[in-house]
Amino acid sequence: MNMNRFVSFIIALCVSLCAMAQPSPWFFGALPSPVINGNGTVTFRLLAPFAEEVKLEGDIFDDGRYETRMVKDAVGIWYYTTEKALESDLYTYRFVVDGVVVRDPQNTFVQRDVFNISNYFIVPGKRGELYSVQNVPHGSVQKCWYYSPVLKQERRMSVYTPPGYEKSDRRYPVLYLLHGMGGDEDSWLVTGRAAQILDNMIAQKRCVPMIVVMTNGNTRHVAAPGESPEGMLQPYMSGSFDTSFEAHFKDVVSYVDRTFRTVAKASGRAIAGLSMGGWHSYQTALNYPWLFNYTGLFSAAVSIDGLAPGTPLLQPQIYDNTSQKTDAYFEDIAKKFYIAIGKDDFLYESNKKLRRQLDMKGYRYRYLESSGGHDWRNWRLYLEDYLTTIFK
Amino acid sequence: MNMNRFVSFIIALCVSLCAMAQPSPWFFGALPSPVINGNGTVTFRLLAPFAEEVKLEGDIFDDGRYETRMVKDAVGIWYYTTEKALESDLYTYRFVVDGVVVRDPQNTFVQRDVFNISNYFIVPGKRGELYSVQNVPHGSVQKCWYYSPVLKQERRMSVYTPPGYEKSDRRYPVLYLLHGMGGDEDSWLVTGRAAQILDNMIAQKRCVPMIVVMTNGNTRHVAAPGESPEGMLQPYMSGSFDTSFEAHFKDVVSYVDRTFRTVAKASGRAIAGLSMGGWHSYQTALNYPWLFNYTGLFSAAVSIDGLAPGTPLLQPQIYDNTSQKTDAYFEDIAKKFYIAIGKDDFLYESNKKLRRQLDMKGYRYRYLESSGGHDWRNWRLYLEDYLTTIFK
Repeated sequence: MNMNRFVSFIIALCVSLCAMAQPSPWFFGALPSPVINGNGTVTFRLLAPFAEEVKLEGDIFDDGRYETRMVKDAVGIWYYTTEKALESDLYTYRFVVDGVVVRDPQNTFVQRDVFNISNYFIVPGKRGELYSVQNVPHGSVQKCWYYSPVLKQERRMSVYTPPGYEKSDRRYPVLYLLHGMGGDEDSWLVTGRAAQILDNMIAQKRCVPMIVVMTNGNTRHVAAPGESPEGMLQPYMSGSFDTSFEAHFKDVVSYVDRTFRTVAKASGRAIAGLSMGGWHSYQTALNYPWLFNYTGLFSAAVSIDGLAPGTPLLQPQIYDNTSQKTDAYFEDIAKKFYIAIGKDDFLYESNKKLRRQLDMKGYRYRYLESSGGHDWRNWRLYLEDYLTTIFK
Repeated sequence: MNMNRFVSFIIALCVSLCAMAQPSPWFFGALPSPVINGNGTVTFRLLAPFAEEVKLEGDIFDDGRYETRMVKDAVGIWYYTTEKALESDLYTYRFVVDGVVVRDPQNTFVQRDVFNISNYFIVPGKRGELYSVQNVPHGSVQKCWYYSPVLKQERRMSVYTPPGYEKSDRRYPVLYLLHGMGGDEDSWLVTGRAAQILDNMIAQKRCVPMIVVMTNGNTRHVAAPGESPEGMLQPYMSGSFDTSFEAHFKDVVSYVDRTFRTVAKASGRAIAGLSMGGWHSYQTALNYPWLFNYTGLFSAAVSIDGLAPGTPLLQPQIYDNTSQKTDAYFEDIAKKFYIAIGKDDFLYESNKKLRRQLDMKGYRYRYLESSGGHDWRNWRLYLEDYLTTIFK
């Protein structure tokens, strides 16, 4: 910017700061953003006096939009206030300034979902409280490495141990919680708020204290991007669907039972996952029925029919005889099955088909149908619901 | 942007993509950035056809600059190539587009240092390898909460346990590693690359396997921003210097000795920290001489004379008689002392004064003087050096 522009900018900024409202207690600096207003709407602000167009992208709309134009005031601050009050939840957003993605400089809090880095904020209320760190006993979260004899790899996982784990001799049941395509062992903790949800639900006695193991579902990589010896590999979506994952799951369970104080039997193990992880959960449960009594499918990719031609399936035979294996699963009355999906999910029809097959045979399962689609807002909701159903 | 501009943009983009070199294996997409060139220089690129000025800020300069202007090509891609080859190290940078801070959209890897979020990249070579995840056994990293009877708080800490910890019955020495003003229990792991440095140095037998405990040095908060019941409190620098930290350190050690398999005596404990954490390390070692045999000061704020007037010191008496306590410390021949500082550090003179006092009395300590100033490049270097000196 040249000197004249710079001078106008400084003058504009000073005028503007004098006119600012009180900063939100959540966010800092002279141009607080986002601000949750008294009426529940939320205002976003960005100082970009030289921009021609600023857009706001995010999951803050309830009408199918994912972006909107912001409006510039006389001094170069761009504004957008939501039309309605936002319900209590966790929201993500980012600015796009003349085509360039920009983080909100007033909000230090970001989360990575595959390759997108977005700001996030939490609207207070019941759901927001569930996703926030509260004044309750906290579990520990660790990143550790296990050896898989099947894959001949050291692999990274995330493990949540419940409050009091370190102080007791007690054994705890284990939920194996799987991410979707493009995700990794960090996803459920970062975008899924799993540790906060577990801490809060355990404190409220809405679920039993449990260990939660979050694996990396892409066997082509041993760890999340930046956390493996491959170096700073960029995250990606496609090509992460393969079938060594199920085959190596015995190695995961074996490591967890050796390393943590677990209830090391089927009644003490659940496996659940979202999207690709729902498929992996389903197939792992069918192929190793002695391992798990609880299986949960969140927006699950319940068929591999939709995979792009040429997607490598390293051990395709693992998916043979799914129908017979499903029969065997449901014949065991100890086994519980769970399906959750959003009405707008692109996988809704394939899940409906699976449900119809189960219904025709009279198999029982718990079903949650939510509004919305294939996103973390739903997956956090499903985790909350699922936690109330297992190990009881 | 209007339609004409959008069309020009698309045409420009297509022309540009056809002319691109091979993408770096580290970074993705059509406009790879940054790219480490064959001659060791590094090129940064940003597509911002409508910007008037783009700057690159970062620690990539060796001449005291922290920013430079980028140059726009005919199609709207802004470029900068470093004048010299960059030495192997970890570097951070960000773009500033017409005054708005922008993350490199081609580089998913970011790190938060207090309130700054920057991209980072690693230039391969000896130092880069030390800071990267290698094909070596990995320790576990956990976030856990301890109760401090002194502060009457549950507080969060990070703990690194060395490779093999879970499988053995062995007891390990503990390094308590403290951050600086504005930092938190995540700092040494994120900006300090502590887990990678430990994994790699243990694999090379350059240091002994040890537990590393990274506390939160700001007793006004119980955890890093976003990780405490205070909610999404923004990080800040000032006002985080207080004297309850030393007073509560017995609680930290007591929790660690109860929870982990430690060598629970002074010969199995070291305390070291950077800047404010160097002062806290020094004072903690002096006030609780029975706890630690090893004390490390990295760019330490070795005097509180420079604190802003009015900075609250909750238990100022903890800093009384520092000189006599220092004498007592050095009278014990089991105790080891370490000082490291950069020639350009604004704390160089106060460290020199401390060294002169120690030298006059003939007290022995290890001293590392590096080039550069008060920054993470030096603190990673000091950690590496310090690890070779303790528990031996």
